[in-house]
Order: sequence, then C-alpha cells, then structure tokens
Amino acid sequence: MGGVSTADRAERVPKQDRSRATRQRLLEAAVSCLAEHGWAGSTVSVVAERAGVSRGAAQHHFPTREDLFTAAVEYVAEERSTALRALFPEGAADDRHAVVAALVDLYTGPLFRAALHLWVAASNEEQLRPRVTELESRVGRETHRIAVDLLAADESVPGVREAVQGLLDMARGLGLANLLTDDAARRERVVTQWAGLLEETLGRGR
Amino acid sequence: MGGVSTADRAERVPKQDRSRATRQRLLEAAVSCLAEHGWAGSTVSVVAERAGVSRGAAQHHFPTREDLFTAAVEYVAEERSTALRALFPEGAADDRHAVVAALVDLYTGPLFRAALHLWVAASNEEQLRPRVTELESRVGRETHRIAVDLLAADESVPGVREAVQGLLDMARGLGLANLLTDDAARRERVVTQWAGLLEETLGRGR
Repeated sequence: MGGVSTADRAERVPKQDRSRATRQRLLEAAVSCLAEHGWAGSTVSVVAERAGVSRGAAQHHFPTREDLFTAAVEYVAEERSTALRALFPEGAADDRHAVVAALVDLYTGPLFRAALHLWVAASNEEQLRPRVTELESRVGRETHRIAVDLLAADESVPGVREAVQGLLDMARGLGLANLLTDDAARRERVVTQWAGLLEETLGRGR
Repeated sequence: MGGVSTADRAERVPKQDRSRATRQRLLEAAVSCLAEHGWAGSTVSVVAERAGVSRGAAQHHFPTREDLFTAAVEYVAEERSTALRALFPEGAADDRHAVVAALVDLYTGPLFRAALHLWVAASNEEQLRPRVTELESRVGRETHRIAVDLLAADESVPGVREAVQGLLDMARGLGLANLLTDDAARRERVVTQWAGLLEETLGRGR
C-alpha cells in the first residue's frame, strides 16, 4: 500500500467507481428480475444481460446465484431504509398517520415482490434458506428500529413493542394482499383505522 | 334417467363414493405437494403418485394443472372455514382473544403455505392469475364473514369493518413471518396486544 504512487491511485479510483457502478446495476437488475419473473426465472445470466454486463463480470462480483439475489434484496432494502429516514429528516414525526402510511408503502412495489419471491423460494430450497433467514431477520430488525424512531414509540411501556411489531406484520400482510390486485383504496382505509388504534397505545407513552 | 333400475342405482352409489374419495385424496395430496415443493415442483403426475391414483384418473378429475391446484386450495380453505366455525359452535364467542388466536392460526400451517405458493406463482403466470385472484377474493370474503360473526363485530359502527380487515391483514403478515422460522412465541405476544386494541374498538359496538 505504502508503495502506491499518486499517479497509480488517480488511475485506480475511476476503476473502483466503474466496478461499484457495475455492481449496483447488477443488484438493481436482479431485484426487478426477481419481482417480474420469480426465482425460477431468475439466473445470473438473465440478470447480467438485463444489466448490460458480461456474464464473466457478473460472476466476478457474485460467484453464485444465491450471492447475487441475497445481496440484491439486502442492497435495495438498505436503499429503502435510507429513503424512509430521509422522508422524515427531523426523526420522530408529529403526524403518525404519515409514518404508518410510509411504513406500509415499504411493502408494496418491486422490493417487496422480489423479497417475497426470495422468501418463498427459500422455504423449499435448503441452499437458500439459512441466508435468506439471516437476511430477513437483519432487515426486519432495521425496519423495526426505524419504525420505533419515527413513531417516537417508548418501548419501555408495556405493549408498545408488540403494537409496533403487529403494525409491521399488518404492513406485510397488506403487501401480500396487493400482490395480485391493486388494493390501494382498501389499504388506505385500513391504515387510517389502525394508525388511530396505534396512536391510542403510543400516546400513553409520549 | 327414468330407465335406471334400482339395481343399477345401488351399484352406482359406491362408484360415486369411490370417485369422491379419489378426488379428495388428490386435493389433499395437491395441497401438501404445493406446500412442500412449491409451484415449480408441483405437477399433476407428482400429485397423482403421492395420492396413489393413476395419472389418467387424476386427469379425468382435473384436466389441467391449474384446475387441480386452484380446486385444492379452495377445498382446503373450505375445510378450514368449517373447522373454524366448529371451534365456536355458539357463534359469537365471549373470549375475543381466543377468536383472534384461532383466526391467526388459519395463516400458519400447510394451507397457508400452499396458498402462498399459488399466489406467488400466479403473480408471474398469466394462465394462473385470473383464477387465483378470483379464488383469493372468494376465500377472503368468507374469512371476513366468519371473523365478523365470531367477533360479534357490528360493521355499522365506523371503523369496525376496517379494524377486522386490518386484523386479517396482520394475520396474513404473521403467516409470512412464520414461513422461514418458527415465530410462535413472538406471534402470541403480538396477538395478545392487538386483540386488546381490537376489543376496545369492537367493545363500543356491542
């Protein structure tokens, strides 16, 4: 490391940037591929072609199909967490209904679809299962942490932790209900009602 | 029809019984197959073998793969609805927590797994999608009706309908959370908390 000249370094940075950009294109292509075609239709070759990357370059970044798709779901989940926090830059928001609606939104759209395909495939494929279980629990903990922060939920109050968990379970169920039909109108009514019930529990802790 | 002798009729009844029993064996085998191996691993041949029925007999009952698996999920969903009503023979139960727990139980176990595989496959397969969407909405309406009856929920009170819907969405999300890991202990705590919140909403309507 000490022997690397300034000129070498200047050349290397753009190469690293290119490599990072390629990786990112692959991850984003993997998520849309999984969301649209499911696990059975998602291979490294299909994703490489979609991302405009050679199969060799794709395998350099992700040696196996499992590497690519778990990394992809994790990457997009992180992007979503960042975007969710950015929606409420002050941290805890006064409008809890808006927070609940934004949390529920995490479970509609292509990331949820992709994650769902991955979970369901993992339930039958022993190769995939431990990695997806681990990923799922990591993403779940992070989502819970964000929900607690944005809702200003005081988890030392009995029942508050379970109320927040139940909210995220409901959000996941609403995502599933939206898989085959556009369920937005019903979802909005359910969210309004449950945000009110949650407010009653959390209000006590404020 | 008028020309059928009593002797003919006596012979035909057991034949119909046998046919009904074969159909039922196929439907039950189809659900376990779907739950264990997913859509990609579930074909009419695999199910016929599992049920100990010839492929020809299976195709006589269910000409296509779509026929077999949608009929299977519907059949088991009906069996479950009947079993759920039988748990509370008096209709509306005093113990709402017990009703909520029983409703949530509908979303763990092999029927939910099988239905989940079918939904996810239908989201990518145009041949399957309209049938599964129609089935899903029929089963969803029936589950909602049972929930309203057993919870003695008065849907003319504002918010009650949405609270019951949200409960079933949460149950679905809890089922999904249970797909890869045994989530029973956490689920029990969430159910207790939300059954309490639901009681507050429904209590007003009693």
